[in-house]
Amino acid sequence: MSTVKPAEDLEADPRVKAVFDDIRTTRKSDFVNNMWRYLAFDPALLERTWAEVKAVMATPSTLDPLVKEMLYIAVSVTNGCSYCVHSHTAAAKAKGMTDAQYAELLAVVSLAGKTNQLATALQLPVDNVFDADRAKA
Amino acid sequence: MSTVKPAEDLEADPRVKAVFDDIRTTRKSDFVNNMWRYLAFDPALLERTWAEVKAVMATPSTLDPLVKEMLYIAVSVTNGCSYCVHSHTAAAKAKGMTDAQYAELLAVVSLAGKTNQLATALQLPVDNVFDADRAKA
Amino acid sequence: MSTVKPAEDLEADPRVKAVFDDIRTTRKSDFVNNMWRYLAFDPALLERTWAEVKAVMATPSTLDPLVKEMLYIAVSVTNGCSYCVHSHTAAAKAKGMTDAQYAELLAVVSLAGKTNQLATALQLPVDNVFDADRAKA
Amino acid sequence: MSTVKPAEDLEADPRVKAVFDDIRTTRKSDFVNNMWRYLAFDPALLERTWAEVKAVMATPSTLDPLVKEMLYIAVSVTNGCSYCVHSHTAAAKAKGMTDAQYAELLAVVSLAGKTNQLATALQLPVDNVFDADRAKA
Amino acid sequence: MSTVKPAEDLEADPRVKAVFDDIRTTRKSDFVNNMWRYLAFDPALLERTWAEVKAVMATPSTLDPLVKEMLYIAVSVTNGCSYCVHSHTAAAKAKGMTDAQYAELLAVVSLAGKTNQLATALQLPVDNVFDADRAKA
Amino acid sequence: MSTVKPAEDLEADPRVKAVFDDIRTTRKSDFVNNMWRYLAFDPALLERTWAEVKAVMATPSTLDPLVKEMLYIAVSVTNGCSYCVHSHTAAAKAKGMTDAQYAELLAVVSLAGKTNQLATALQLPVDNVFDADRAKA
Repeated sequence: MSTVKPAEDLEADPRVKAVFDDIRTTRKSDFVNNMWRYLAFDPALLERTWAEVKAVMATPSTLDPLVKEMLYIAVSVTNGCSYCVHSHTAAAKAKGMTDAQYAELLAVVSLAGKTNQLATALQLPVDNVFDADRAKA
Repeated sequence: MSTVKPAEDLEADPRVKAVFDDIRTTRKSDFVNNMWRYLAFDPALLERTWAEVKAVMATPSTLDPLVKEMLYIAVSVTNGCSYCVHSHTAAAKAKGMTDAQYAELLAVVSLAGKTNQLATALQLPVDNVFDADRAKA
Repeated sequence: MSTVKPAEDLEADPRVKAVFDDIRTTRKSDFVNNMWRYLAFDPALLERTWAEVKAVMATPSTLDPLVKEMLYIAVSVTNGCSYCVHSHTAAAKAKGMTDAQYAELLAVVSLAGKTNQLATALQLPVDNVFDADRAKA
Repeated sequence: MSTVKPAEDLEADPRVKAVFDDIRTTRKSDFVNNMWRYLAFDPALLERTWAEVKAVMATPSTLDPLVKEMLYIAVSVTNGCSYCVHSHTAAAKAKGMTDAQYAELLAVVSLAGKTNQLATALQLPVDNVFDADRAKA
Repeated sequence: MSTVKPAEDLEADPRVKAVFDDIRTTRKSDFVNNMWRYLAFDPALLERTWAEVKAVMATPSTLDPLVKEMLYIAVSVTNGCSYCVHSHTAAAKAKGMTDAQYAELLAVVSLAGKTNQLATALQLPVDNVFDADRAKA
Repeated sequence: MSTVKPAEDLEADPRVKAVFDDIRTTRKSDFVNNMWRYLAFDPALLERTWAEVKAVMATPSTLDPLVKEMLYIAVSVTNGCSYCVHSHTAAAKAKGMTDAQYAELLAVVSLAGKTNQLATALQLPVDNVFDADRAKA
C-alpha cells in the first residue's frame, strides 16, 4: 500500500537516474530501495533528500556509522515508522551489528520509552544543574 | 510543576535511603536528581526503576556508555520528554560528548524525524529484502 | 506562555458565560480551569468542546469515572501533553485515586511505553488469533 | 487486521443506515469507507463521530476544503496513522491536490518533523515576543 | 514482516522453555504469542521482559485486571503500536470487556487525543491549583 | 532551560553573522529568534538548517505561505514541540491568520487527533480504493 505509484521506467528521467546512480556508487550495491523509488515522483524532493541523507549518513564524521544507524533506529521506533525501522535495522546489520548489540539497543530504547512515561507523568521539574543557560549564567 | 511532592526527609524511609545510597555509589556523586526524588513516593516503584536503569545503563556491555546515552537522548527527543532530554544530555556530556558529536547527534536525530515523515506520508511498502522472516524462509 | 490571551471579562459574552455556568454546575465548583478560559476566544469551539467533554466524562456510563480519568492520563502522558497530565491527574485524585493506585497506573503506563518500543522495533507480525476480521471469517 | 468485525448487513440497523445515507448524500458518492463501517459496531459512536467530521470537514468555512485535508494529512502522518494518511491523501487528491502541491506538502511536513527534533533536543527557551499572555500584559 | 526470525525449535533453549512454561502456567493456556517468540532471540531480554509483564499485569493489585488492559490499550493506541493494540484488545476481551465498554474506551481515548491537541496548540499555562509542588509549599 | 548556551557575541563568528544577516534580509526584520541563536553553537548545522527552512518556507511556490505555516503548526502540535508551536503560530498570525481561521485550524487538528485514535484503536484495514499501488496495477 502506498499513496503514490512509481513510474514503470523511473530512470528514463535523467534527474532520477543521476540520483539512483549516486546511490549505487555510494553504497557499492545495485539495489535501490523503495524510499528512493517512491520519492522519485518529484525529482527535486528526491535530489534534496538524498543529498542530505548522503551528507549525514554516508560521510565520515565524529560518530561511527553503526552508531548513526542505531540512532536512526531509535528515532524510527519511537515515531512508529515501520518502513524506517526495517530499512535502518537492515543497514545496521549490514554494518556489523551483532545480535548482542541489537538486544542491548532494544533494552536501552525500551527503557527510555518507559522512563519517558514516568518523567512525563510526574511532570518532573528539571534539576537546575541540567540547565546550560542557568549553569553558565 | 509536578504531580507529586517529595517528602521533606525522603531518606527517613530505609528503602528510599538504600536506593539513594546505591545511586550515589554507582555514580560516584552525592547528587540525586529529581527522577529518583519524585519516584520515592512509592518505594517499590523507585526500587524497580532504579534496578533496571542500573542494569541497562551502568553495567559494562557491548555498547559504549556514551552511545547508550545518545540513544536515550534520541528516544527522549522523539517522545518530547523535556526532563529526559535534559538529564541524558547532561549525562552524555559528563561521559565526554563533544560539541561536534552533539551537533552530529542532532543532525542524525533530526534527519530521522524528517525521513520518518516522508516514509509514513508515502506509506512506503517495505522492500522484501528487509524482512527477516521472509529472508530466511 | 500561551498562543492566545483570554479577555479581561470573559463572561461578558453570554455564550461563554453559559458554558462556564454549566461547567460550575456540572462540577459543583466555582473554579473554571484554563482550558475553558483560553478556548473562549472562539465561543463555538468552546461550546462544542465542553459539550463533548461533558457527554463523555461527566455522564454515568459503563466505565467508572475514575477509570475514565486514568485512561485520560494514559493518553495525555503518551502524547506528552503537560497541561492535560496535570489537569487529569488532579481530577483523578479528586475522584479518589490513592497513591497506591497512582503508582500502579504509572507502572502500567510505563511498561506499555516499554513494550510498545519492543514490538515496534521487532516489527512483530500480529498473531492470527488477534484478528477479529480473520477470526470470524 | 482489525479489532472488530463489521456485521454482514450493517444497514439493517436503522441508525447505521441513516448515517451511511447521509455520508453518501454529503459526499455525492455510493462508497462508504471502512472508518464508518467499523465504527458502526456502536451506532452512537458512529453518529457522533460522523456528525463532527461533517461539521468540521464538509461545511463551508474560512479554510479551503483542500487546505483542511492537507492539515489532516499533516497530523495523521505525525501520529503515524496509516489508515488516516491513506484516506485523507485520497480525499486531498479528489479535491484537486496536484503532484506539485503534494511534493510541497511533504517538504513542509518533513521539515517540521526535522526542526521539531532540533528545538526539542536543544530545549529552546520560547522567545518572549511569541507569548500572547506576556505580549498583552 | 519482522526484523528477527524465531528459531525453528525455540524451546530447545532451556531458558526460553522456562519462560514459555511460566507464560503457559500463568495464563492457563498453551498459546504463546509472537511477542515472546520473537524476543527469544535474546534469552536474557526475554526473561527480564516477561518477569516485568508478569509482575505488573498478572499480579493481584489495587487496579482491576481489565482496567490495566484498558490502560495498556490507551497507551498503545497513542503510540501507534499495531501489535500491542491487537494483543491487549484481545486480552481485554478475554477479561470480559463488553462492546459497550469498548465503545466507551474508544470515546475517552479519542477525546483525549482531541483535547491534547487543543491544549498543546494553545500552550495553556497550567493552573496553579494543579501543581502538587506549589500546593504544599 | 536549554542544553546549550549561546555565546555572548554570536556574530563574531563570520559564518553565524552571514546566516543572521540573511535571516534579517529574508524576513525584513532585525529580530533573530532563539532557534537560530542556539543552533549557532555549530555553524555548519546552522547554515544547513537555515538554508532548508528558507528554501521550503520563504520561497514562492504552489502552496500559500500561510497554508505552509498552518501545516507547520499541525505537525508541531502533534509532536508536542512547544517552541515550534509558539514560533509558527506567531508566524501564521504575522502572515494574516485571523482568529476565525485559527479556531478552524484548531478544530481540524484536534479532530484529526481524535479520529487518528479511533482508526488506530480499531486497526482499520485500508480500503482498496485508497491504495495507489493497487489502483494502477
